[in-house]
Amino acid sequence: MNLFDKHRATFERARLACRERHCWSPFPELPQKYPNATEAQATGLAAYQAHLGTRFTLDQPGTIGETGEEISPYTQQALGIRYPHADVDTLFDAAEAAIPRWADASAETRIGVLMEVLDTIYREHLFEIAQAVMHTAGQSYNMAYAGSGVNALDRGIEALVYAHQAMQAVTSTSRWERQFGSAHIALDKTYRLVPRGVAVCFSCASFPTWNAWPSMMASLATGNAVIVKPHPATVLPMAISVRVFREVLARAGFDANLVTMALDTTAEPIGKVLVKHPKTAIVDFTGSVRFGQWVEQNAHPALSFTETAGCNTVVLESAEDLDAALRSLATTLCMFSAQMCTSPQNIYIPAEGVKTPQGTVALGEVARRLAAAVAGLTGDAKKASMILATIQSAQTLALLDQMKQEGAKRGEVLLEPQSYIHPDFSNARTTTPLMLKVGKSERDLYGEERFGPISFVIACDDAEDALHQATNDAKQFGGLTAFLYSTDESYIAQAERTYARAGAQLTINLTGPMPLNFAAAYSDYHVTGLNPAGNASLTNLAFVAGRFCITQSRRPAPTAPTAATS
Amino acid sequence: MNLFDKHRATFERARLACRERHCWSPFPELPQKYPNATEAQATGLAAYQAHLGTRFTLDQPGTIGETGEEISPYTQQALGIRYPHADVDTLFDAAEAAIPRWADASAETRIGVLMEVLDTIYREHLFEIAQAVMHTAGQSYNMAYAGSGVNALDRGIEALVYAHQAMQAVTSTSRWERQFGSAHIALDKTYRLVPRGVAVCFSCASFPTWNAWPSMMASLATGNAVIVKPHPATVLPMAISVRVFREVLARAGFDANLVTMALDTTAEPIGKVLVKHPKTAIVDFTGSVRFGQWVEQNAHPALSFTETAGCNTVVLESAEDLDAALRSLATTLCMFSAQMCTSPQNIYIPAEGVKTPQGTVALGEVARRLAAAVAGLTGDAKKASMILATIQSAQTLALLDQMKQEGAKRGEVLLEPQSYIHPDFSNARTTTPLMLKVGKSERDLYGEERFGPISFVIACDDAEDALHQATNDAKQFGGLTAFLYSTDESYIAQAERTYARAGAQLTINLTGPMPLNFAAAYSDYHVTGLNPAGNASLTNLAFVAGRFCITQSRRPAPTAPTAATS
Repeated sequence: MNLFDKHRATFERARLACRERHCWSPFPELPQKYPNATEAQATGLAAYQAHLGTRFTLDQPGTIGETGEEISPYTQQALGIRYPHADVDTLFDAAEAAIPRWADASAETRIGVLMEVLDTIYREHLFEIAQAVMHTAGQSYNMAYAGSGVNALDRGIEALVYAHQAMQAVTSTSRWERQFGSAHIALDKTYRLVPRGVAVCFSCASFPTWNAWPSMMASLATGNAVIVKPHPATVLPMAISVRVFREVLARAGFDANLVTMALDTTAEPIGKVLVKHPKTAIVDFTGSVRFGQWVEQNAHPALSFTETAGCNTVVLESAEDLDAALRSLATTLCMFSAQMCTSPQNIYIPAEGVKTPQGTVALGEVARRLAAAVAGLTGDAKKASMILATIQSAQTLALLDQMKQEGAKRGEVLLEPQSYIHPDFSNARTTTPLMLKVGKSERDLYGEERFGPISFVIACDDAEDALHQATNDAKQFGGLTAFLYSTDESYIAQAERTYARAGAQLTINLTGPMPLNFAAAYSDYHVTGLNPAGNASLTNLAFVAGRFCITQSRRPAPTAPTAATS
Repeated sequence: MNLFDKHRATFERARLACRERHCWSPFPELPQKYPNATEAQATGLAAYQAHLGTRFTLDQPGTIGETGEEISPYTQQALGIRYPHADVDTLFDAAEAAIPRWADASAETRIGVLMEVLDTIYREHLFEIAQAVMHTAGQSYNMAYAGSGVNALDRGIEALVYAHQAMQAVTSTSRWERQFGSAHIALDKTYRLVPRGVAVCFSCASFPTWNAWPSMMASLATGNAVIVKPHPATVLPMAISVRVFREVLARAGFDANLVTMALDTTAEPIGKVLVKHPKTAIVDFTGSVRFGQWVEQNAHPALSFTETAGCNTVVLESAEDLDAALRSLATTLCMFSAQMCTSPQNIYIPAEGVKTPQGTVALGEVARRLAAAVAGLTGDAKKASMILATIQSAQTLALLDQMKQEGAKRGEVLLEPQSYIHPDFSNARTTTPLMLKVGKSERDLYGEERFGPISFVIACDDAEDALHQATNDAKQFGGLTAFLYSTDESYIAQAERTYARAGAQLTINLTGPMPLNFAAAYSDYHVTGLNPAGNASLTNLAFVAGRFCITQSRRPAPTAPTAATS
């Protein structure tokens, strides 16, 4: 049985989910539901620990040295893993050489191999990668399993579904017949899908796999090769991934150099070299707004697909159950210390306060209760550790300090950040959130992503103004997600229209245990491309359709034998 | 009956043609097959003539003056048509204001209106536009009818089919249900297609409608507005088109300012202003390589779709019937004086000559016979007028002269260009083709598009070298089409592979009355995006899928009534 047939049932099910965008996954949501969970988790942990202090073996060409500067946010100690440092030109040459055979394979052959890659990651490396994500990105164990594990695998399958759809739209042959004057012309036409070439996939420090796997799937399914460029702080999850890709590709009879890894260091970044390399045909970038915008402006002639960040907005106009809304908001403000591109940052509230069935609650009171809800979630170290996890980069702590000073001068500090002692890792880099209350004129403070657990309660003139400010800020500064609480259906309808134009994905009146910013594969489109938070969307046809081109050849059809000779 | 239903049968038939890419068109191929052809042609001619020397009425906003510098290549006299010259900012503001209602309409509503636009052009303006194309672009009557008329309409329908396909891939609603712990979460999700904004569509001097109509269709179908920027030498065909778009849109209840026209003059071009306008979201460009590359590099944050030019290549290795091959090549070298982006320019021949069943024909002999075939087609003024038509720009004659001088110094002039007297227009700007024979080292001569009836017979080392040079030149300098004559199946297979990688659409061993470079809507992909001849392809999903974005909103599903209360 070929690999596509092996995974056909899952793939068909995924196609249905993408069409209907309902809830589905072939993977268990929680680590404890994984088959033989206890053993698998122990094996994963052991595999992770075996990497520490060793040389990571990757049989890719062009190795000219070693590099590795990862530090665990949990232990604040170096992982001590040394990765092969490769000559970039050698990687491009190897990638280019690997493409023709891969491109000549059928779309289903490629998709079968890539489904096998995802399945291999799931079966053999999921907990190893989860540990690797914890100790580089700093995520909690559950988030590393779900958000950087199964959910990222789902987004990978989803990308394969769309790649399949785009490629299936192109017939491989046609017969074309027409009269030209008295002559009958019959042409046989052959259409080929030709990959663009070598793709460079940048993965980010805080969520290494979630965007990288689907980007890799999109490029590889359409016949391209991929050079992965991990953030130097978060290499291990992608190094393990790259090794799996290479092994599965080689086992399937393809050149392992379809997937390689290029590394740099914080001191000597190579991002621009990769983007401007003459052989770069596609760039997938997840990371900072600044470099993302540079990529968009400079990638030409390569295509670029970016996901950066923005100031995700919340509008709190009225609520059926204000406390439930504030609990949900507080949870989402704390989740992984708001180091998610979907975390809310700016909370716009009418000056007169928020309407509830019990009357209008004053703005100051709402802010206070929201801060109290956040404090309540983070007061206990055990609870804090599960929701806040750790802070990926020390720079974030410095930013918090700076914002606190600035916020105190220009507004009110609703909640002071302070480190908490992680129950399992006493040396973990941690902080509780900083919450500020400011006037809407402090746009230079809140009008960009302040990465980390920083949020702003922003006093607006009225409900109209709150929506206006929030959607304008999303449009101008970028925004992936948006959150609205309102009991006024006409206000909701207006918000749906204006947020659609601003290009932020809106969640309305959600309360309860589901994280507000949860983005479900097969169902939620991630990034719209309509504002500076990125130009690509996971996953739509535009994310895949440009990664291959269509070439054709045509020639006179063989003359049919006449009746007499047949 | 709504407009989509009115055109549904045609549209469904077009969808089938796009899927199977067979030969089909709802329109008659030849002007004489048009319903009531004689009367329709007379009416069209009269409508064209009524424009001459008058002010072209276009009820768009922002008119600040008049402009018009068109000169008929047939009469070499000014058309004397004065077009409204509009303030660019006013056009953008008006376009932007027109979008929301259009974007809120369903995809099928928009497509219905746009099918009606194409149908209106076909029924009411086809011969008027054909005359307008003749007297601006300089095409022959038959080409103006087919290539700039029905074939361009077909490409418009084709763009609508792909826009429909891309939009249909997105469900408009979903119900998403999942457990989070003990809680059951049910969300109703709504997905909206949001247009990028205002598109700018540049049309070119020699083929104004062929790319512009499908580009406009692609942008409009996906909810955007379009500002058309015609080449100042060829305004009338697009001015008539814009007026039809506006009338049909208004009749259907939409804002006519969804389609407007921005004009400039040769002395004061506004192309860069339009591309860099802060409200420009999409740029479609057909025209010169130089400006096309500028567009690709500078359009960001707007998307760009370009079709420029290249040096289209011919490889002549062996032939079953050499004379038939040379006749077909000669015809294609002459067609509209090679002022088509698909016209061949560079003919690569092994030094030892071309193999035929009668033995190898020496390179010099092949070149001589090809030149003779071209001379044979153009010796008679009547025949010449039908195939060569006129020269759009006087610059082309200057280029011919320059190339002749240079070619004489560095190679051999196979055929001297000379003007011929057009039988119907004695003052027409005409020339017969220039043919040069050069060594392959004269790459600075032939290694770019030399716009107009200029071709190069290039002596290569051997068959292998001929294919190598030709495909390398296409890859490096751009190439839309390629033509191969060979009786060696393994050579053909090699050529298919290498041309696919070079990104030129290959026609093999075609002889007979069909023009070699004929590109059929619904069947032939035009431009691959794999070489500098353009980054867009007519029409694939990538041509449409990025023109809209997907936004969503989600909210808790209404709680189902319990059994007791229902």
